[in-house]
Amino acid sequence: MVLINGQLVTQIDCTDRGLHYGDGLFETLEIVQGSPVFLQQHLARLQRGCQILKIPYPEQLLLAEITQLSQGTATGVLKIMLTRGSGGRGYRQPDTIETTRFLALHPFPNYPTSYQTDGIAARFCDVRLGLNPLLAGLKHNNRLENVLARAEWQDDYQEGLLININEQVIEGTMSNLFIVKDNILYTPELSLSGVQGIIRDIIMQLAHDNNMTFQETVLSREQVLAADELFVSNSIIGIWPIASLEQQHYSVGKLTKKLMHLLSAYKQSEQSC
Amino acid sequence: MVLINGQLVTQIDCTDRGLHYGDGLFETLEIVQGSPVFLQQHLARLQRGCQILKIPYPEQLLLAEITQLSQGTATGVLKIMLTRGSGGRGYRQPDTIETTRFLALHPFPNYPTSYQTDGIAARFCDVRLGLNPLLAGLKHNNRLENVLARAEWQDDYQEGLLININEQVIEGTMSNLFIVKDNILYTPELSLSGVQGIIRDIIMQLAHDNNMTFQETVLSREQVLAADELFVSNSIIGIWPIASLEQQHYSVGKLTKKLMHLLSAYKQSEQSC
Repeated sequence: MVLINGQLVTQIDCTDRGLHYGDGLFETLEIVQGSPVFLQQHLARLQRGCQILKIPYPEQLLLAEITQLSQGTATGVLKIMLTRGSGGRGYRQPDTIETTRFLALHPFPNYPTSYQTDGIAARFCDVRLGLNPLLAGLKHNNRLENVLARAEWQDDYQEGLLININEQVIEGTMSNLFIVKDNILYTPELSLSGVQGIIRDIIMQLAHDNNMTFQETVLSREQVLAADELFVSNSIIGIWPIASLEQQHYSVGKLTKKLMHLLSAYKQSEQSC
Repeated sequence: MVLINGQLVTQIDCTDRGLHYGDGLFETLEIVQGSPVFLQQHLARLQRGCQILKIPYPEQLLLAEITQLSQGTATGVLKIMLTRGSGGRGYRQPDTIETTRFLALHPFPNYPTSYQTDGIAARFCDVRLGLNPLLAGLKHNNRLENVLARAEWQDDYQEGLLININEQVIEGTMSNLFIVKDNILYTPELSLSGVQGIIRDIIMQLAHDNNMTFQETVLSREQVLAADELFVSNSIIGIWPIASLEQQHYSVGKLTKKLMHLLSAYKQSEQSC
């Protein structure tokens, strides 16, 4: 089910700048009992992205349409996308930007429970992420790198880890990465490449609130492989421990389990607000 | 007038991966007397891009649709875009990719003749291009950088020059850049950033064929400002000399005029084939 600018449709104006230039931003949210999980955090990121890309943020219409699409939905995935709309001349934007609002409701993916309990198989991708301080962190629509990386394998892995051209490990193709080494929690810093995930932010906050030693840092492939615990996170999967990475095997560790528990409790407390 | 997968339409399937991820490539061609200028060169670049992005290249259908749209058109601009089509799960592409073919015919822009005869006003953009060896050179749909750069000014300049995060001058927002210094022709090398334009390729070939001393190189902002002659090129404008860049002023130089003449003659010889 898709709602574009308030209309239930299946097609979009073929002059939309999202199609021509990836000129937009998106969010992917879990719906539980008619309610989008961590909605305020997702909308805050979307609004920040709109400020950076100078796309007008249509707050009131968006809120109404999110309610319209999510209410009555027991479980699902809500994609929210905003583009710079149509018009302009080539790259030049129109004098008046009418932001396109795109909302789509999808079934919740049918992931095996074992991905959470026992962990997943991961690999390093061959694709190297570029460096882009201007766009790093944003969940924008220029996602060719992720598409090309995800095309490297079929079903034998659940996630691929992305390394940038500076040989820094950055994230998964659809997730953020955390590792634990000697009881310290690390996640790659994202000033040059990568997407600043909502669950990543929340995990960092939970680590802080629970007095875990924590660091955003630069991580090499070797440091990641030598970790005691590894996990990936996003808004749909929550936390998935990594059980294997290339030839290495890992147990679901103590800190990973603790953060899964804390995230689950925090999610429930936010939903009951 | 827009032709999507052979149909005259105004809308496109809202699940198209071009819209969601900028998962596609495009070409912009001049139409003269029903015939797309430098068609073989554009299609060769499109096909190379498809190989790198692993998008099936629908040669026969595309050729038929190009003919359908351009014949009978005295003058115009033809945009050809290919995307990875619809489907797949998130970044993961579908098992069978059905390439979307998008062709649009636009009026030829009404540029003043003085842009060619007297030159244009240019500026340096504040936006810094990222570094991306994987995608550099391709005319792909991930063009947020160009959009943001073009949004920096209104009508007081005709082009903005883009510098990457290594402080190398790369190109214009919609064009390639050439400079002349001490009778040597230079253009920025594009291994890390930028689009490898068709007219850029042709100018390099013409320079070679006419025994001009020529070099693809790394150019700083200072080197560009200190040039004797500067010009930008693309498939629609041909060659525009730069008459002013920031506070500097330049005459339309001897080598620039010679290349404009050679390009014009080459275009006519190709069209009469």
